[in-house]
Amino acid sequence: MVDFLRAGLQPIILYVDIYALLVNYVHPMPLVKHRLSYYRHLTTAVLSSLGVSPEQITHIDESSYAYTEAFIQEFHKLIVMMRRTDAHCTSEVAETEMLSPLLCCIHQTLGEVFTGMDIQFGGLDQYDLFAHSATFLPLINHQPREHIMNNMVPSLKYTSPTSSPSSSIPPSPTSASKMSSSHTPDAKIEFLDSPATVHQKVSEADCNPGDITHSNGVLGILRDIIWPIAEMQFERLQGVVGYNLLEGKNIKTQEEEAFTFPSAPEGSILSVCDLITGEERHYNTYDEIERDYADGIISPNDLKNLVISALNQLLRQIRKIYRESDEWQVVDELAYPGGVY
Amino acid sequence: MVDFLRAGLQPIILYVDIYALLVNYVHPMPLVKHRLSYYRHLTTAVLSSLGVSPEQITHIDESSYAYTEAFIQEFHKLIVMMRRTDAHCTSEVAETEMLSPLLCCIHQTLGEVFTGMDIQFGGLDQYDLFAHSATFLPLINHQPREHIMNNMVPSLKYTSPTSSPSSSIPPSPTSASKMSSSHTPDAKIEFLDSPATVHQKVSEADCNPGDITHSNGVLGILRDIIWPIAEMQFERLQGVVGYNLLEGKNIKTQEEEAFTFPSAPEGSILSVCDLITGEERHYNTYDEIERDYADGIISPNDLKNLVISALNQLLRQIRKIYRESDEWQVVDELAYPGGVY
Repeated sequence: MVDFLRAGLQPIILYVDIYALLVNYVHPMPLVKHRLSYYRHLTTAVLSSLGVSPEQITHIDESSYAYTEAFIQEFHKLIVMMRRTDAHCTSEVAETEMLSPLLCCIHQTLGEVFTGMDIQFGGLDQYDLFAHSATFLPLINHQPREHIMNNMVPSLKYTSPTSSPSSSIPPSPTSASKMSSSHTPDAKIEFLDSPATVHQKVSEADCNPGDITHSNGVLGILRDIIWPIAEMQFERLQGVVGYNLLEGKNIKTQEEEAFTFPSAPEGSILSVCDLITGEERHYNTYDEIERDYADGIISPNDLKNLVISALNQLLRQIRKIYRESDEWQVVDELAYPGGVY
Repeated sequence: MVDFLRAGLQPIILYVDIYALLVNYVHPMPLVKHRLSYYRHLTTAVLSSLGVSPEQITHIDESSYAYTEAFIQEFHKLIVMMRRTDAHCTSEVAETEMLSPLLCCIHQTLGEVFTGMDIQFGGLDQYDLFAHSATFLPLINHQPREHIMNNMVPSLKYTSPTSSPSSSIPPSPTSASKMSSSHTPDAKIEFLDSPATVHQKVSEADCNPGDITHSNGVLGILRDIIWPIAEMQFERLQGVVGYNLLEGKNIKTQEEEAFTFPSAPEGSILSVCDLITGEERHYNTYDEIERDYADGIISPNDLKNLVISALNQLLRQIRKIYRESDEWQVVDELAYPGGVY
């Protein structure tokens, strides 16, 4: 999000409540609405912890436009062009015999029109949904949109619990080991996990020495979450903010909590401590870290220690916002009654 | 419709334009709307020819409520409960790989709620759609409705052109030989067919001597269309009108064109002429006609002659309304450009 603001874009966060209803076919709309409200609190807190102020982001609920006649007319134009196989754009569609997930791709595609977005950003698991949009929007006389995808954060467990051991189908490269809500709790980090929980999950995570493949979830967290944020904070200290003139001005950030040790030389972005020798290493690029991990210079324990401490540093401000927000806590209980997520 | 009015009901004709869009997935909404307008002219003319005045009937277009938020919310409640197989309620769903026909049953079922109807009346081919409604409406907290079905008028050809000769699947008893728009033109009578066309189609129809099964379309027209109307006109002459106090009062009917010959004794409803001997037979019940046809007392030619003359008598007033309505003719050209039906 900081990258988009620096690039001069005007980000929108789209909360697809109706999509969520259609894809879950279990929880009714009132509960979905509470969860949407929960996610709005969460994203605002996460962005705030990264130095993005609320006024920089537009929030749109899908239900704000998806009940209009204009939307339904476009929905009908699209659905009458589609074969059933054209709706097989998400893993949920393949895994169920329920009817409603077949409509999800239509909702996703029309979201681009009804929010007025130019570019849609999502995980690599959105590939088929984005392809649906690219194919079908022009057929109903709308401009196709640009699509950007990022890596999925890998699971903390090498074997994804959703893949059947007897299955002969190789996992898709885009979704093999993503940190998904369908995984067991110990395979993923939640934004409101306590410091002790983060410590336990990462400590117990699968993390082979020298494994720099995408299946190493601990390294993945460093690569996809911690490093980009450390780099962002480093650049921010240098005054590199692009078009985002609000950055570092009226926003309190975590910049006082650096990702480097005091001993780090000028220009270092992140420091790693050797837990056995006590030696400190300082890095300017992620590639150097990955090479040192591949060569055994950084051990799994060193890596886990780094990730635990950095994650807890990142989550501290989010937990604080939660603790101080009675409203968010009420919404949490409504969205996940009894603490069942 | 006359029966419903006599029973004191308040009939609604529901024009399912959005259902039609979803089930045809070829013609766009503007064309569907023109066809809806065509059907409204047609139904009004047909009812008028049977002595039903326009103010006795309420006409509702599906699109008048199906774009509302209230409808879409019920639509979503319903679809998230359904397995894909639950949507297999019409022959179109089984015959295509297109996506949109899967939604038709939902539109049909919710039509009962949004028109406020208590009873839905349709052909026997609606059986599975009505079953869908009976199953699912209570699940979203709506009262189930009553359903009434009538026979489908049989095709004029023994072999339905849509059934593949190599198919090993026996035809369903509810849809085997219905006079359907998917059949070849010579297998069905259109409301605006000319007298010569009616003559040709019935003359060339399949009609085995003594065949009183449902596959004899000529006998079917007599049983399902001509006899009920002859009986209605007979009763109307007797003053039997039930709760329908408008019947026979301010409405010009075709009663002067009786279905009996002048020689018929008091109480006769329909007369048949033996084309070879010239003998005239008069009937009080349909069963007597059917027995005489089974016994060969009425020949196929006698039957066809009766049906041609009665159909042309029934269609005369409808053709006249069409000829005298510039508006209907304009709509016809918009709905079926170039006369392609």
